[in-house]
Amino acid sequence: MDCSRAQQSQASDEVDKTTAVVEKQQHSQSKQVSKDVREGEKTGAWKCTKNQLSRIMRPDDANVAGNVHGGNILKMIEEAGCIVGTRHCNTQNGDRCLAALVRVEKTEFLSPVFIGEVAHVTAEITHTSKHSLEVQVKVMAENILTGAKKLANKAALWYVPCSLQNVDKIMEVPPIKYASAEQEEEGRKRYEAQKMERLETKARPEEVMPSPPNPEDPPKEKHTVGFSQSSLIHLVGPSDCTLHDYVHGGVTMKLMDEVAGIVAARHCNTNIVTASVDAINFHRKIKKGCVVTVTGRLTFVSNKSMEIEVLVDASSMVEAEKGKYRAVSAFFTFISLDKDNKPLPVPALKVEGEDEQRRFDEGKARYLQNKEKRLSDKTRGQ
Amino acid sequence: MDCSRAQQSQASDEVDKTTAVVEKQQHSQSKQVSKDVREGEKTGAWKCTKNQLSRIMRPDDANVAGNVHGGNILKMIEEAGCIVGTRHCNTQNGDRCLAALVRVEKTEFLSPVFIGEVAHVTAEITHTSKHSLEVQVKVMAENILTGAKKLANKAALWYVPCSLQNVDKIMEVPPIKYASAEQEEEGRKRYEAQKMERLETKARPEEVMPSPPNPEDPPKEKHTVGFSQSSLIHLVGPSDCTLHDYVHGGVTMKLMDEVAGIVAARHCNTNIVTASVDAINFHRKIKKGCVVTVTGRLTFVSNKSMEIEVLVDASSMVEAEKGKYRAVSAFFTFISLDKDNKPLPVPALKVEGEDEQRRFDEGKARYLQNKEKRLSDKTRGQ
Amino acid sequence: MDCSRAQQSQASDEVDKTTAVVEKQQHSQSKQVSKDVREGEKTGAWKCTKNQLSRIMRPDDANVAGNVHGGNILKMIEEAGCIVGTRHCNTQNGDRCLAALVRVEKTEFLSPVFIGEVAHVTAEITHTSKHSLEVQVKVMAENILTGAKKLANKAALWYVPCSLQNVDKIMEVPPIKYASAEQEEEGRKRYEAQKMERLETKARPEEVMPSPPNPEDPPKEKHTVGFSQSSLIHLVGPSDCTLHDYVHGGVTMKLMDEVAGIVAARHCNTNIVTASVDAINFHRKIKKGCVVTVTGRLTFVSNKSMEIEVLVDASSMVEAEKGKYRAVSAFFTFISLDKDNKPLPVPALKVEGEDEQRRFDEGKARYLQNKEKRLSDKTRGQ
Repeated sequence: MDCSRAQQSQASDEVDKTTAVVEKQQHSQSKQVSKDVREGEKTGAWKCTKNQLSRIMRPDDANVAGNVHGGNILKMIEEAGCIVGTRHCNTQNGDRCLAALVRVEKTEFLSPVFIGEVAHVTAEITHTSKHSLEVQVKVMAENILTGAKKLANKAALWYVPCSLQNVDKIMEVPPIKYASAEQEEEGRKRYEAQKMERLETKARPEEVMPSPPNPEDPPKEKHTVGFSQSSLIHLVGPSDCTLHDYVHGGVTMKLMDEVAGIVAARHCNTNIVTASVDAINFHRKIKKGCVVTVTGRLTFVSNKSMEIEVLVDASSMVEAEKGKYRAVSAFFTFISLDKDNKPLPVPALKVEGEDEQRRFDEGKARYLQNKEKRLSDKTRGQ
Repeated sequence: MDCSRAQQSQASDEVDKTTAVVEKQQHSQSKQVSKDVREGEKTGAWKCTKNQLSRIMRPDDANVAGNVHGGNILKMIEEAGCIVGTRHCNTQNGDRCLAALVRVEKTEFLSPVFIGEVAHVTAEITHTSKHSLEVQVKVMAENILTGAKKLANKAALWYVPCSLQNVDKIMEVPPIKYASAEQEEEGRKRYEAQKMERLETKARPEEVMPSPPNPEDPPKEKHTVGFSQSSLIHLVGPSDCTLHDYVHGGVTMKLMDEVAGIVAARHCNTNIVTASVDAINFHRKIKKGCVVTVTGRLTFVSNKSMEIEVLVDASSMVEAEKGKYRAVSAFFTFISLDKDNKPLPVPALKVEGEDEQRRFDEGKARYLQNKEKRLSDKTRGQ
Repeated sequence: MDCSRAQQSQASDEVDKTTAVVEKQQHSQSKQVSKDVREGEKTGAWKCTKNQLSRIMRPDDANVAGNVHGGNILKMIEEAGCIVGTRHCNTQNGDRCLAALVRVEKTEFLSPVFIGEVAHVTAEITHTSKHSLEVQVKVMAENILTGAKKLANKAALWYVPCSLQNVDKIMEVPPIKYASAEQEEEGRKRYEAQKMERLETKARPEEVMPSPPNPEDPPKEKHTVGFSQSSLIHLVGPSDCTLHDYVHGGVTMKLMDEVAGIVAARHCNTNIVTASVDAINFHRKIKKGCVVTVTGRLTFVSNKSMEIEVLVDASSMVEAEKGKYRAVSAFFTFISLDKDNKPLPVPALKVEGEDEQRRFDEGKARYLQNKEKRLSDKTRGQ
């Protein structure tokens, strides 16, 4: 428990009462408990805007080389964000609500995480607008055998609170207190920037889901887009969903990373890992019982990286008239690693036709822009 | 990350370095990060003896009535304990090692946990002997929609550090610092008490695994021991195991709770929940690839509770010559609940034969002893 | 599970042959498909009679030797069939419905699948009657590091559409268009054949669930039926179920394969894999919250294979009056492999008593019939 909420006196009562019972049972440790509670009271205004989640990485979380899938990291990040966001949005009166993910900012995977390491995911609310909130999440990977720790990922997520009574009703977000006016102002800028981008991508024409390779056609030539293109389908089950019965954003991102990883491995036949994910906008929700089709294809390849576009289409199996719709799309960047986890060169992409060339050029532009940004950040930092 | 280790300067360096990179990227939040790190340095001597883990409870964690299985709580408790124990035992030179669970003290489930709630599991090292350590774990369940929190469970676990080079080599445990001599003395008493009990149960003759109902016999009469007796087998997979390739104690406890729950539900045909688990001693480890047979049978039934003995036998499928062996056994107590989560009366147990009567009498003795202890704790507390 | 059919050359032959057969079967239909696509493009309406699902095989999907369990392949096959069937049956007016599995034809595991490979499961509706539909499913395993692909499995499944309003109401199935009258006629023959077999097995007296070994008896002699007999119980959870809250056929098949694999491993103490599964009829559904007991016992052993009968009984824990009932039963054939995935001889089965002898003789008859069929298929194919 890392927060104690002042305004919810009833809740505090409950904790105190139970603590009291326990105190009688386990004398020495309960001292520790009440100390914790008192400390919470002292710091006072903290208001539960922070949360932490830890988990040992298991074999199923990783690829054959032992690297934990980027998709699992994204899923943990989203779970931590959802907890802190939902908790905060329910500190006021009105309908109970759940924080639904609407956007993840571009995020980079800074260090690989391995099986047996403990991932610590810390989420904190860093900005609130009237109807949305920003959560910044940090993932530290700890090797509990050596004590070594490394920053594996940092991400910023945007949530909106949807009423449990009516999932289409967006609730108001209680404001947070900022440490300084400057901090508040920076948050407002991030808010405006992401809002504009979300509107922009909403208006953009959707990429058509590529048609799956026809197995009776002659096999595609190696290193073409068609050769590595892949898709999977998944039937949405109860454990994929929130209390609203809509798919957790983190579950969708995990599926996207899985497909992108298959595309990348097919292209270079080596151990590959997620290097970064471009901003993802979740324009439309996916309900329990839907079938999601996740397709990935290479758009751009540099010397040492591959950009994969991933498209997620959803369709209800039982309400066919609703048709298939695009739920999410995003660009994942993967790199290829040798046995010592050092980057390998990536085979060049054989581009065929106008559409593939257009996507390649757009990918290249994004690649150059990111490169430039990294350089300028570096220069500014010095 | 909730601890920063002073003596591991290399690790700290790593964090600082990465933090520095990030700082350049995300100006405002990195301030928060460095503040956290500084606070860690300030409190100084804290030495990573604490850990927290949180998770949203999903439909798969719960029964049909929405109550999270006691076995899932036990599994989370053990994961938290393993992390904090392993981390602590690797703060010295010598072989890297893993903390292996050897004992869980009697634990009570104080409040039910429901789907959608967030379970916060906090683990802290509270005592160390030369070769073992005690971890106390607290589970708080938080309803993030209402803000209500309740104490769901408190448990004490004993671990020993096993070398990664040689799983049978027990390493030395670095001592912790105690807040007071009184606290240290209390810990030593708990250590001596559990040591004696472990020796005692090791010497005790093993209960024979009960024979399952023979379907060619006429069906067992309702409410007899044979009627509700149940067993399951499980093939140990990679995700069940530690880096040693031995089963996590938490995984075993989850299977035990699952069987006990089926026995209890068969006896009373209502919604049942775990009320408490008696001390469990893990005398022998279970290796990856083994088949475990987990059998549960009713031993004693009071007005409102059922005691179920659970026996876990393991056998290697590929080293048949090693034979089947008893890995763990324990007593689980279940209660039956109505729709408002209020305890229901439990049908009386029809005891048949000498062995069943003996086990019933022993169970009754445990029941009365616990009842008396609760009363005396209450009186002392007032 | 995981099977690799004997000497790889035979397996390759078989693959070629099967591929050839399929090519012949699907020749005209693939025309249909491309026609559909064209029509789809023209009319903008997609016919949805085909579906593909891909997934990376993870450590938990496989045994200790890295072979993916046959049960996992069966589960993916059934999921793909359920999706394509449900989607098709909802293209008309009337109640929304789910395709419920009623039968899987005999299926062989042609090549082993390993951790890290991508399984591609393609499902296509190949026949419709008034109230049922046939889905043919093909599983290709792709090594994404080498690009190698192999046919792992082919199966044919029969589904009936059950109304979401009333699970006992069977809806009508919209007809599909056949490429030729011949193709339609062949489908009708398959339909009639399976219908007759389903009626037959329904009328057949049920095998009694074997009684588990009594541990108070002296241990069973090695290589007897009783020695390797095994059973597990499983409490049906939400993730096991369809939107109807009934267990997916694929989940049941996975449990059956798990028990059969344990029986086989106990008999020969080696790495074992599923070679084939006889036709399975799902006469009765299993509801969420039920306990299923899955029991496996050896019926017949040849030089290189073991036939295991698996019986699935279900019982509701809260509606005890409904009693236990037989939900499914089937015969699984396993083979034993050495470290190079080559078949090993299997210890002979020690048969005791009349019942075991009768089952052995019946198993031998099935074995000889299959062998003959394979030979005649081979001759015909040349």
